[in-house]
Amino acid sequence: MTDSHEGKSDDEVGKVYLVGSGPGDPELLTVKAKRLLEAADVVLHDKLPGPEILGMIPEAKREDVGKRAGGEWTPQEYTNARLVELAGEGNTVVRLKGGDPTVFGRGGEEMVVLADNEIPFEVVPGITSAIAGAEAAGIPVTHRDFVSSVSFVTGHEDPTKDESAIDWEALANTGGTIVVLMGVGKLPAYTAELRKYGMDPETPVALVERATWPDQRVATGTLETIVDVRDEMEIEPPAITVIGGVAGQREHVVDFLEGV
Amino acid sequence: MTDSHEGKSDDEVGKVYLVGSGPGDPELLTVKAKRLLEAADVVLHDKLPGPEILGMIPEAKREDVGKRAGGEWTPQEYTNARLVELAGEGNTVVRLKGGDPTVFGRGGEEMVVLADNEIPFEVVPGITSAIAGAEAAGIPVTHRDFVSSVSFVTGHEDPTKDESAIDWEALANTGGTIVVLMGVGKLPAYTAELRKYGMDPETPVALVERATWPDQRVATGTLETIVDVRDEMEIEPPAITVIGGVAGQREHVVDFLEGV
Repeated sequence: MTDSHEGKSDDEVGKVYLVGSGPGDPELLTVKAKRLLEAADVVLHDKLPGPEILGMIPEAKREDVGKRAGGEWTPQEYTNARLVELAGEGNTVVRLKGGDPTVFGRGGEEMVVLADNEIPFEVVPGITSAIAGAEAAGIPVTHRDFVSSVSFVTGHEDPTKDESAIDWEALANTGGTIVVLMGVGKLPAYTAELRKYGMDPETPVALVERATWPDQRVATGTLETIVDVRDEMEIEPPAITVIGGVAGQREHVVDFLEGV
Repeated sequence: MTDSHEGKSDDEVGKVYLVGSGPGDPELLTVKAKRLLEAADVVLHDKLPGPEILGMIPEAKREDVGKRAGGEWTPQEYTNARLVELAGEGNTVVRLKGGDPTVFGRGGEEMVVLADNEIPFEVVPGITSAIAGAEAAGIPVTHRDFVSSVSFVTGHEDPTKDESAIDWEALANTGGTIVVLMGVGKLPAYTAELRKYGMDPETPVALVERATWPDQRVATGTLETIVDVRDEMEIEPPAITVIGGVAGQREHVVDFLEGV
């Protein structure tokens, strides 16, 4: 695989794999993701896959599109253009994303850019921390006896939006489990919303910080108490918030729960 | 915990891993699931992991708790008791489940049974077909520009429940993507419910049959047309249903989508 200045022809176009890295534990990579990381010519990544997984990729293949020198975030437009450029040069490119590529991962936008530029691509799902984080804390995301749905929302919406597009009233009314990704900062706001819309203040809530990482921490409380618990324990991003009856199960099983 | 007739001591208790097999493609097993399948003394499974993954497990280790000789489903109580028994005998047991263990997988119930019987356990998440199936069809489950949530529901609830516990009105009101697992049979009922509660009849809908399997098929339509499409194409379980604007993306990208 070569650079464009070597003048390859169009029929040598490469391919882009949009790959989820999972929640951080390298053993939670899929077999396919692991194989592709080994086979890729270039891996475009940000910091979200975590140090253990990034450490598995040879330095020479890695291209960090998470931050630029000045400390600012790389614009998505740069990443999009770089994917097209690298594949156009005939490279096999892995775009490695934390968790899953389309669960708040902007993989959908990248798919469209690739198709518009006639670049063949494939999406390789990853374990989302929304599920793995709950389970690593002893919490099932659904339960046959009392939960028929689970909803994932992001606590970190597009900052250019004027107001939240999340309908907390509708989410409260589903009666299902709610998992908020990247929801540490706005915890006071949305727990208040959910109480306002009729959810029981005693509803169990768990925060899972650095889910599946060796230094994972879990904080538990209720819709009413969890903000204080967060503050006392100094829970920081990245973390997921699990809201619903299922979060109460941790206490019941934690003495026999192994893993992280 | 021991098998009393063998008189082993308590310190020989084994361990149970509740492991998700992912949607069916063996390469979508996690690295950890693959390692555990190789290391386990016994693998308790049903048919959901699919023939390719089950074929990787030596016959001598496999115990099918999916069906009994008479063609009836094994009661969950039998599976629970067998997990406790095998671990009590000191075995390393993998309970292998299709998709993810707690996304409508009854892993939550098994966790409680294990804890109640003082059996150490671990949960190993798997890729859910709810996400992998959408992506394999060129559909992102969320999209920064217009979807801030995704909800997973089951089309196959506990048959002993008198009425559906799923609040389709609330789900319609979330404005987010809805993915129905095991939802082929009840498609007419819930698409009608969603229209009744105000969702645009033109909302894109995709059915993904045998997601990520070599013979995967995708059917697309709208809330209004998808039942006819299902009938014409004779879509059968297992399949997922993706409902929402994101489902319209398939058409835009499918010419460059590779993989299945």
